[in-house]
Amino acid sequence: MKDQIKDQIDRQPKGHKAAVVLSSGGADSTTAMAIAAWEEGFEIYSLSFDYGQKNRYELECARKVARFFKVREHLIIPLNLRLIGGSALTADEIAIPRRRPDEELSSAIPPTYVPARNLIFLSLAVAWAEVLGIADIFIGVNAIDYSGYPDCRPAFIDSFQKTANLGTRMGTEGGEGRITIHAPLINLTKGEILRKGLALGVDYHLTSSCYEPDPFSGRPCGQCDSCRIRQRGFASLGLDDPCR
Amino acid sequence: MKDQIKDQIDRQPKGHKAAVVLSSGGADSTTAMAIAAWEEGFEIYSLSFDYGQKNRYELECARKVARFFKVREHLIIPLNLRLIGGSALTADEIAIPRRRPDEELSSAIPPTYVPARNLIFLSLAVAWAEVLGIADIFIGVNAIDYSGYPDCRPAFIDSFQKTANLGTRMGTEGGEGRITIHAPLINLTKGEILRKGLALGVDYHLTSSCYEPDPFSGRPCGQCDSCRIRQRGFASLGLDDPCR
Repeated sequence: MKDQIKDQIDRQPKGHKAAVVLSSGGADSTTAMAIAAWEEGFEIYSLSFDYGQKNRYELECARKVARFFKVREHLIIPLNLRLIGGSALTADEIAIPRRRPDEELSSAIPPTYVPARNLIFLSLAVAWAEVLGIADIFIGVNAIDYSGYPDCRPAFIDSFQKTANLGTRMGTEGGEGRITIHAPLINLTKGEILRKGLALGVDYHLTSSCYEPDPFSGRPCGQCDSCRIRQRGFASLGLDDPCR
Repeated sequence: MKDQIKDQIDRQPKGHKAAVVLSSGGADSTTAMAIAAWEEGFEIYSLSFDYGQKNRYELECARKVARFFKVREHLIIPLNLRLIGGSALTADEIAIPRRRPDEELSSAIPPTYVPARNLIFLSLAVAWAEVLGIADIFIGVNAIDYSGYPDCRPAFIDSFQKTANLGTRMGTEGGEGRITIHAPLINLTKGEILRKGLALGVDYHLTSSCYEPDPFSGRPCGQCDSCRIRQRGFASLGLDDPCR
């Protein structure tokens, strides 16, 4: 029995280092993947969730991104968070706010917050990583140009890493702190994130950041907070968004 | 927008206190539910997972337990952990160990460990609780007569609670430490757990603890670690297990 599990954990090729990267198909997670793959040299296992998000197009982007990076494996886990609801991204009865171009982003947690989303997604990333024998997990959260989500802050990521090490075989048998949650964008502005990704060779045309794009063409709405933050990021570099 | 979410969070009746209880249909989670409902007076929202477990019968038990406790709502979330595998409880190619009656339980983490299971299940419990406006979550883990799982230890539960408070709207807007993870069985032996439940009026005939019972009758195998621990618990009280 134990040997069977051990085989599974050891199936990762020796001499390679591999990482699980959470991939939403958006600009941030794709930049995090570029850093993991091209800057830090990890072989990539990308992980996405079909969680009942209104933006169905982003899963198609996650697939394109996986092909672009030639990931070793792309796992899409179905997990219907509409059963839980409570977010404009999953509940039909809660609209996604659209803003006028001159309207400031609010500092309060917006209705697009998905309850405990990064906690849930990171937990499943830890499970998959553990079975693959991988200790490194990348997530493209950032705490500067973001939407005020509590699960994008450094204190949450640090605490999650501790918890994951306490609650898993890999964390307890592999020595303290073996599981590492990498959040390489956490202290960057959107402009810095995009500059970094472009320098590494990311094709942002493959990505979708809009909360509610056209489901067929993927054309962004241009008015949701996520579109607004992305536009400002490209504008700060004097560039046009390749998706517009 | 904000008001819509607020309505949802406030939908819990005033003057009542409510808790989300993780319910597997086993003896431990059912005892935790009895403590939450009958000792502490919480209205119960029970949460189970159809996670690809070999023991399909336990979901039927979780439904019976929910009816027995007249819970306010019983949510069963489908989440196919067979996509991740790595455990004897979900992977067909890994057998559940059966032991001779005189064989000691091992102190190592056994193949029935499901990678990051309590991390994943607690994360989803936090999400549901947050949408319901509930701050109290019960889980029937115990660190004495258990199977050596790292995610059943007090250090993990404490760290998870901190992480959940850092990563959610409820934890950050509701004041530090608002979300409480109750693990009332964590320092009890199996005999103490069953004595407590029996004193409160639990009908253990409704529960299933076996890792691989007969799928139709629910008859326990009697030889897996979970059966062995349950048998010893009842034996320590001079009782027979009502399921045998």
